[in-house]
Amino acid sequence: MSDLVAIAQESRIAALSLAESSEECRNNALTAIAEALTRHQEEIFKANQQDCDKAAGVIPPALYARLQLKESKLKSAIQGIYDLIRLPDPLGHVSLLRELDTDLILERVSCPLGVIGVIFEARPEALIQIATLAIKSGNAVILKGGKEAIHSCNILTQIIQNALQTAGVNPKTVQLLTTREEINALLSLDEYVDLIIPRGSNQFVRYIQENTRIPVIGHADGICHLYIDAEADLQQAISITVDSKTQYPAACNAIETLLIHKAVAKEFLPPIAAALREKGVTIRGDAATREIIEAEEATELDWQTEYCDLILSIRVVDSLQEAIDHINRYGSKHTDAIVTNNRENAEKFLNLVDSAGVYHNCSTRFADGFRYGFGAEVGISTQKTPPRGPVGLEGLVTYKYKLRGKGHIVADYAENRRRFTHKDLL
Amino acid sequence: MSDLVAIAQESRIAALSLAESSEECRNNALTAIAEALTRHQEEIFKANQQDCDKAAGVIPPALYARLQLKESKLKSAIQGIYDLIRLPDPLGHVSLLRELDTDLILERVSCPLGVIGVIFEARPEALIQIATLAIKSGNAVILKGGKEAIHSCNILTQIIQNALQTAGVNPKTVQLLTTREEINALLSLDEYVDLIIPRGSNQFVRYIQENTRIPVIGHADGICHLYIDAEADLQQAISITVDSKTQYPAACNAIETLLIHKAVAKEFLPPIAAALREKGVTIRGDAATREIIEAEEATELDWQTEYCDLILSIRVVDSLQEAIDHINRYGSKHTDAIVTNNRENAEKFLNLVDSAGVYHNCSTRFADGFRYGFGAEVGISTQKTPPRGPVGLEGLVTYKYKLRGKGHIVADYAENRRRFTHKDLL
Repeated sequence: MSDLVAIAQESRIAALSLAESSEECRNNALTAIAEALTRHQEEIFKANQQDCDKAAGVIPPALYARLQLKESKLKSAIQGIYDLIRLPDPLGHVSLLRELDTDLILERVSCPLGVIGVIFEARPEALIQIATLAIKSGNAVILKGGKEAIHSCNILTQIIQNALQTAGVNPKTVQLLTTREEINALLSLDEYVDLIIPRGSNQFVRYIQENTRIPVIGHADGICHLYIDAEADLQQAISITVDSKTQYPAACNAIETLLIHKAVAKEFLPPIAAALREKGVTIRGDAATREIIEAEEATELDWQTEYCDLILSIRVVDSLQEAIDHINRYGSKHTDAIVTNNRENAEKFLNLVDSAGVYHNCSTRFADGFRYGFGAEVGISTQKTPPRGPVGLEGLVTYKYKLRGKGHIVADYAENRRRFTHKDLL
Repeated sequence: MSDLVAIAQESRIAALSLAESSEECRNNALTAIAEALTRHQEEIFKANQQDCDKAAGVIPPALYARLQLKESKLKSAIQGIYDLIRLPDPLGHVSLLRELDTDLILERVSCPLGVIGVIFEARPEALIQIATLAIKSGNAVILKGGKEAIHSCNILTQIIQNALQTAGVNPKTVQLLTTREEINALLSLDEYVDLIIPRGSNQFVRYIQENTRIPVIGHADGICHLYIDAEADLQQAISITVDSKTQYPAACNAIETLLIHKAVAKEFLPPIAAALREKGVTIRGDAATREIIEAEEATELDWQTEYCDLILSIRVVDSLQEAIDHINRYGSKHTDAIVTNNRENAEKFLNLVDSAGVYHNCSTRFADGFRYGFGAEVGISTQKTPPRGPVGLEGLVTYKYKLRGKGHIVADYAENRRRFTHKDLL
């Protein structure tokens, strides 16, 4: 624990000097990192091979695939750094500029958060992405990767730290923790760490959320819904349903439950069931659904489950309101969509469904920072307070108020010798 | 506890219908409340008198003064409602409008948080202010006032609920809790309550922050600093110091510690000590200070203390950097100021002091939502993530992403049949 405090204090020092750095300095550091990763790729692959050799046959194939850092993955991670360099500077953005009185000017300006703790799976290229997002936004970062990736994470951190040093940036800007015990210690460092980003399974993210007072960007569940209204275009509904469920079923923005208005259930269920089954989807239905098509029985538990798999629960509802109520009750406030040609129904759904993303006549799979045009995605947040939904670089910055005067004091206003002008200058 | 869940569920229902309401509807409800409070003022004064009679001699004079709802206080609270009505609608504000592709339009639009829990002192007019801020921003609110104000809070809630009913708004939009036990129950309702606003002593706010997973707007401490640089205008420095310390010493934005560059300590300390003593301020100084003026000894504990009183600790520092380090170590990230005529020093201070408000040549007492021109103040936040600093009505709203398409699916983009355009329309 006391070691970790020392690490966190070094991070704070590094963060303060990065907060003062120019955009050019941070972008130069990113270029140095991209070049160093390219130069040292053989060492990286060798370290990764060590990790893979040790994990082979021990971890499930899906996790093994994530652990493997193939040439194409590293290449695309490095390309990601060059894309990041081209993004506008998230720092120094003035969102309010107001004259409070003559020569008393208030400015709200974006600045780095400070120190960010990121806990991620055994997936080496995630380290590259996270470290470079942090540097771009002027933050120091304390990383903890899954233990299976330890050799990969060590060599990547070393290469990044060396590159930072040559670029004139404090190498402690990026630090790596290596033991599992350090996770809980990190979560308790609310005095030093300004934001935690957990990446991994739902249970893992929930554990983090429940065990720290540091703000967390992330989502435990992605229980997304698609509602087919009485006035839906059924061809469109089929295409959107198949995309929302099967285009990438493990994604958090894939749907788990399909709600169908009773007026179209008879016409819609047979073709959508056929289309889904062609893609290998298992259907679980409520009683009304099972009167129309064959399906396993959906229970209360199904409405609460994120399958992350080719399984879809289906429920027939009596009304738009019942669909909205179902979503607000069982959903995870992530992304929910309606298919309808009735504009009024669409607007009611968009206004009353209490989720970060509310969609009309399109797939829930669009919920993603890159698809939204953010250029980067830090995470997707399902909390109600901002940042909400897909979070880009702006999730790694905050703002401060700068007030510049010429000797102004409050007594002059309290005693009516002066009056505020409150004139916006932006 | 189960009673409170029922109350919270009623609040959610009320919140959903208020979320759909027009600006006109919410402003009409506010007008109805203002009129009803005016009409029923005698009942309000009578109920408040009951509270005062019971508390007289039992609670300290300062608290008794807060408990008393005099005619002038009620009048100004009602005037506050009319001011609030004139503020722009915080809902429906579009902060991003982007074409992702032809006919696929992304919109980020402000919307209410939902249900807000507010726990406040025995200060009846706070109930009026909080309830009306919540209504203006489309939220339901669950209130818990200090127990000494129970009769006042009951009658005010009843009047507000009746006014809401006549204005066609669900009266459960504003609900009152009456027992202390309900505070902890409220803090555990993260499934139903979206934001907690605690008002009261530092210890109380800290207790709330440490005992809930619901986001909290507030600050436990206000340890603010003023640094007098080597190149300060000393007349200005005296005036700003006196204002920052004495204009309202109990405020969170009053200074607790004065830092003075050693180069000006000899010249500055005698006149500032005289000016402060004239206002009744007790000075505690470090060794260097006490070599120049007479003062009590300042200990390590002084640097960590919010006096909320006419006491000021003074420390002589060797450099600007030492002042910045002192503030970042002991401050509460609230508001800190520098007095200097050196522009470079000022900018360094503004960039490196890690506080919500960083000021140059003006009093820390300007840190306030009304002085910033927000028209209302929900609270002052000292957390690093937004909202930070004085928080206006925007602290009671969030945003959601609305995406409207015409059958768009992600597979088309993943398989390169279509490309995103990402064209900003705002």
